[in-house]
Amino acid sequence: MTFRAPVRDIAFALKTVGHSALVERAFPDLDEDTVQAVLEAAGAFADNELAPLNRRGDLEGARYENGKVTAAPGFAAAYKAFAEQGWNSLTADPLFGGQGLPKAMELAVFEMAHAANMAFALCPMLTQAAIEALTLHGTERQKRLVLPKLVSGEWTGAMVLTEPQAGSDLAALTTRAEPDGEGGYRLHGQKIFITWGDHDATDNIIHLVLARTPDAPPGVKGISLFLTSKYELKDDGSLGSRNDFRPGSIEHKLGIHASPTCVMLYEGAKAELVGELGQGLAHMFVMMNAARVQVGVQGVGIAERAFQQALAFAQERRQGRAVWSADYPAAIYDHPDVRRTLMLMKAKIEAARGICLTTGVLADLAHRAEDEDERAAAKARQELLTPIAKAWSTDVGVEVASAGVQIHGGMGFIEETGAAQHYRDARIAPIYEGTNGIQAADLVGRKVRMNGGETMRGLCAEMMLSAQALADSPGLAPVGRRLAEGVAALERATDWLLGADNGAALAASVPYLKLAGDVVGGWILGRLAIAADGSDEPWLQAKGALARLYAAQVLSTAPGAADGLGEGWDELEQTPAALLAG
Amino acid sequence: MTFRAPVRDIAFALKTVGHSALVERAFPDLDEDTVQAVLEAAGAFADNELAPLNRRGDLEGARYENGKVTAAPGFAAAYKAFAEQGWNSLTADPLFGGQGLPKAMELAVFEMAHAANMAFALCPMLTQAAIEALTLHGTERQKRLVLPKLVSGEWTGAMVLTEPQAGSDLAALTTRAEPDGEGGYRLHGQKIFITWGDHDATDNIIHLVLARTPDAPPGVKGISLFLTSKYELKDDGSLGSRNDFRPGSIEHKLGIHASPTCVMLYEGAKAELVGELGQGLAHMFVMMNAARVQVGVQGVGIAERAFQQALAFAQERRQGRAVWSADYPAAIYDHPDVRRTLMLMKAKIEAARGICLTTGVLADLAHRAEDEDERAAAKARQELLTPIAKAWSTDVGVEVASAGVQIHGGMGFIEETGAAQHYRDARIAPIYEGTNGIQAADLVGRKVRMNGGETMRGLCAEMMLSAQALADSPGLAPVGRRLAEGVAALERATDWLLGADNGAALAASVPYLKLAGDVVGGWILGRLAIAADGSDEPWLQAKGALARLYAAQVLSTAPGAADGLGEGWDELEQTPAALLAG
Repeated sequence: MTFRAPVRDIAFALKTVGHSALVERAFPDLDEDTVQAVLEAAGAFADNELAPLNRRGDLEGARYENGKVTAAPGFAAAYKAFAEQGWNSLTADPLFGGQGLPKAMELAVFEMAHAANMAFALCPMLTQAAIEALTLHGTERQKRLVLPKLVSGEWTGAMVLTEPQAGSDLAALTTRAEPDGEGGYRLHGQKIFITWGDHDATDNIIHLVLARTPDAPPGVKGISLFLTSKYELKDDGSLGSRNDFRPGSIEHKLGIHASPTCVMLYEGAKAELVGELGQGLAHMFVMMNAARVQVGVQGVGIAERAFQQALAFAQERRQGRAVWSADYPAAIYDHPDVRRTLMLMKAKIEAARGICLTTGVLADLAHRAEDEDERAAAKARQELLTPIAKAWSTDVGVEVASAGVQIHGGMGFIEETGAAQHYRDARIAPIYEGTNGIQAADLVGRKVRMNGGETMRGLCAEMMLSAQALADSPGLAPVGRRLAEGVAALERATDWLLGADNGAALAASVPYLKLAGDVVGGWILGRLAIAADGSDEPWLQAKGALARLYAAQVLSTAPGAADGLGEGWDELEQTPAALLAG
Repeated sequence: MTFRAPVRDIAFALKTVGHSALVERAFPDLDEDTVQAVLEAAGAFADNELAPLNRRGDLEGARYENGKVTAAPGFAAAYKAFAEQGWNSLTADPLFGGQGLPKAMELAVFEMAHAANMAFALCPMLTQAAIEALTLHGTERQKRLVLPKLVSGEWTGAMVLTEPQAGSDLAALTTRAEPDGEGGYRLHGQKIFITWGDHDATDNIIHLVLARTPDAPPGVKGISLFLTSKYELKDDGSLGSRNDFRPGSIEHKLGIHASPTCVMLYEGAKAELVGELGQGLAHMFVMMNAARVQVGVQGVGIAERAFQQALAFAQERRQGRAVWSADYPAAIYDHPDVRRTLMLMKAKIEAARGICLTTGVLADLAHRAEDEDERAAAKARQELLTPIAKAWSTDVGVEVASAGVQIHGGMGFIEETGAAQHYRDARIAPIYEGTNGIQAADLVGRKVRMNGGETMRGLCAEMMLSAQALADSPGLAPVGRRLAEGVAALERATDWLLGADNGAALAASVPYLKLAGDVVGGWILGRLAIAADGSDEPWLQAKGALARLYAAQVLSTAPGAADGLGEGWDELEQTPAALLAG
């Protein structure tokens, strides 16, 4: 199955959710032709260089032998081409060799890379996160010696957080950073789940590591961020001797086999402090927030990949008589349920894409808008949408990949078909960069409550205006009505949440996030439909159909979901695990 | 992770949904002690013999070499023990060595086998289906020579339907059955996806094969059912020479690696007609309807397995501070969202189990009740519930297995943990024995409409009575209210369906089936809660909590889902595939 990057859809989504805001308020030179040219070139790279490696990467995977990790066949060469063509440097500061493009553009480009080859794209994705953290918190030396190499892609970056006893709870980590008496540190400890922690695709790898200094207080306040380099960083920019850390093994995983997930052993590795002592978690969250939206985009990408494969199969595969076709045997696309499934897959992909791109646009405005109040408002909404973008989109990724298997029937369960790989690959995205449960806790615990619910109420008010605009358009009035009901449901749920105790709020957090994502997704689809309304182009006319189907099938359940949200949590608190055993 | 068969829950479910009806009207000798003893012995076999082979079966799988299939390590010995202990002969006619127990008991026993080792249990499951088909349609010779061997488990049976071009559309099959001039036939053709089509666990294997005779009319009327035996069946009961069919290969699949999925080649294999010429599909549906409920039970079993593993992990794994615990680090069970997830998993498992067991009880009453009207009513409801039992329960299987991975966090994605195997194994159940889309088409196209909706209306009326009973119980009143709203929603949806054209009905079929399953599942949970109400036993008190949580989280969305069901299908009919390409 040939993958074709959905450049047309992505460009339309970016234009609809924020290109004009970006141009007016942050990137005056970002004309549509530039956007189109970048997306087309990225799409071609994804189609021609990355997608063909995906299946072989799954079959052969990354290898660990003799203390070294070898990338899957073809991945090192593809990585070099990726870096040489500048895909690694889109958003970085031109001071360090970057192209200074918006975050939203980077997300658009990376969606295509993730769709083409999710295991591959994880490597530059984490490098982007390292670039962001060092740009904000690195020392002058780190910026001078490291940033240009990460931006050019000559080196890659890894995020080094998790330990066996410290997953969702990073406060429990125990890796030590001992002062070496010369202003530096030595790292001692074991880390797990380190994505692309070692490989042979570049000459050097930079690790950003969370660790504790000897006299640090317990808990999160004792955690600092350190930079350690696979090879010593000499002042003249050249590399010195091998540092004292190494991969101990790589994991045998359900999916993304070509992404080496390393156990990393730090055995006195030389390291430098990044930012301030005791601020490690805060500094790392710069990386994590960027990475969280990117993981949401992975959900979109893997869903798009699975959707394309299912759509192609549904047109090729012929079975039986179909009520919507005179052919016998009919293409299964002409069986109504297959068509409904495909169209709902597509609608959810476009909704998730729009949520992620919106979050990217807000990140850009939060950085670059001239007006301080506008920056603050954009930042608040970006922070509100980040857990939704991550969790809702990755749940869509799993759901759509599963539907893709289903459309293939028995062939979907055969590995050779390829649909099963997407189902396996997609499953990691709801887990890493903060599980979707952690995202939901962040949403209800911090993001909604942070200013008395004002940010969520502001979003709801804006969505309600869109609902009114939809209601004024004859073909889209049903979308407007259901969106208004959905927004009202989200407002009711938010009011309940603001008055709930912590236990109830956390118990309701995942259903609340789903409700919020369902409604925001409907808002996105409604705006795409308005933007497409009246167009002569058939593919744009389909945007209205997508919005109407989503409204009938998804938004319709929002009021009921909101009604049930507040019930039963006292009882849940009283239910010990023993009662659930059969 | 140790599996423990949920004997207590299964016995309670069986008692609640139909033991008294079975005793009063079909099996007067079926006392509770017998039921309990059988379930406990089956549970012990599942725990001690089948569960320990599951992981190794996944890792090593069945093998194909030199034209033969070898079962996964330990499977042949386990199969012999399974047969020797009588688990293969529960429901068969005592005339042929069976124990004459109810179908509902067989489902209860097989749930534990599927949970312990789904790949294993497929083999006897398909043998049961072959026994049913031969009991109803076999010749005297076939019954005499074959049935006792299948009932004892000395031989196994396989269902041989699918061909590359004939999956959901069996009318397209081309395998030929040519008369041999001596009253027999010779089979020529290739079949695919033949579960346990070849193996080394028994001395002989019986295939029930769909094929066409030379002068048969095209389409389904030209299809007949044939019996062919791996070794020739001599009249004295002994086996003769090897027959001319063989496995061509086995598939490399996403899951159930220990279940050999064979390409089978028939190269002039000697065969006998089963039943009447041209009635093959009708005869095969006897097997398929039995197998469909069994596949629903697989969904329940794999969900139970995944749930147990997640529950155990949630009690062992400690991370961070939890609002519902004073411990630090707290068991993740004490994090509200983890607990909510587990409890909703459990509720859906119990709902699906109840639906499947209800369908089994109805099958028994349809066979054995004295009153003809009662038999007819039971049969109509059994047929109505069969596609719901199959599709809704297998969707629950996938959903719960996915939630099980999620609860494990990063560990869930590592194959060694075992949670990922359930996620992979579970994915086949919505596909085989008729995809869930085919089930939905059967539900709306035949089962609901077959008598003007009367059977569904009768079920709704009975569910409404339960809703009233729940409303009269103080603690269960909210369940009663939401169940009443859900039943009313299902009635509205049914009314719409009865007036819809075929295209719209089929387009809405999967959402309609989901709505029906959600509501019937709520009815089951409500009845379990009523049966448990007032008990002193803590585990029974939890049944009320499960019903309340399900009502708030699932039944609450039924009215909205029903409202959206009828919209958008004209537009969908007008949407060509090209419009969905990006």
